[in-house]
Amino acid sequence: MELYSHEYFMNEALKQAKAAFEDGEIPVGAVIVCRNKVIARAYNQTETLNDVTAHAEMLAITSAANYLGAKYLVDCKLYVTLEPCVMCGGALYWSQISEVHYAASDPRRGYLQSNTGILHPKTKVYSGTMGSESEALLLQFFQNLRK
Amino acid sequence: MELYSHEYFMNEALKQAKAAFEDGEIPVGAVIVCRNKVIARAYNQTETLNDVTAHAEMLAITSAANYLGAKYLVDCKLYVTLEPCVMCGGALYWSQISEVHYAASDPRRGYLQSNTGILHPKTKVYSGTMGSESEALLLQFFQNLRK
Repeated sequence: MELYSHEYFMNEALKQAKAAFEDGEIPVGAVIVCRNKVIARAYNQTETLNDVTAHAEMLAITSAANYLGAKYLVDCKLYVTLEPCVMCGGALYWSQISEVHYAASDPRRGYLQSNTGILHPKTKVYSGTMGSESEALLLQFFQNLRK
Repeated sequence: MELYSHEYFMNEALKQAKAAFEDGEIPVGAVIVCRNKVIARAYNQTETLNDVTAHAEMLAITSAANYLGAKYLVDCKLYVTLEPCVMCGGALYWSQISEVHYAASDPRRGYLQSNTGILHPKTKVYSGTMGSESEALLLQFFQNLRK
């Protein structure tokens, strides 16, 4: 079995972010990987679904649990193009996910703003993979919005 | 028009918590009120929906936005039987809800554990209404679980 790299999976998340961009949504995408396989793909749909809770990570968590038939994502990894917000960090805590990989940081609303442990103590966090690609997409989105 | 009290609305939330209890779910219930009218009712369904994100507050936020046809709940009040967790606190931030009323405190996983502002600065918070009724229901649930 071919083992995919973190870059491969983050690029899959970035494809989701690009789909959000095409739909006029803030371009954030996520995939959840279990045993080297993408089991959930989602992008931000807050406008389309008229729902502030419809962040890419939330939709991916629900979708992955549905695929697995299990509430807890203990053997899963999240790849997301932007640092999760407090809501998504709280949801990831409940999911007990093994790893969180995010591309770009979000100094304004990222969960790291809060200085207490939001994620589960068992969850390992990695950041920066394809961060500049994700940032460029977000920047382009907000520049278009201001035009 | 008759104006209902906070106790009236919290009791409506408590009815939802009791429905959760009957379904074998951790008994937490919520209602969202807009202009003196309940526009959304929900209870915790994490077991039934096999989804860690299916807290009463999350389902109520989605339902209220659907009812209003508007993403932001600026003129709405949440009544919930337990202090919201970090995930729900983060969702309430995005919703820009006017008021949050919770019955019982959750010193273990309540959003107040985090010492940075999780809720929106415009959101007013009230606590304690029917707190002992909510606590008694939760206690009974966990005592039954241990039997």
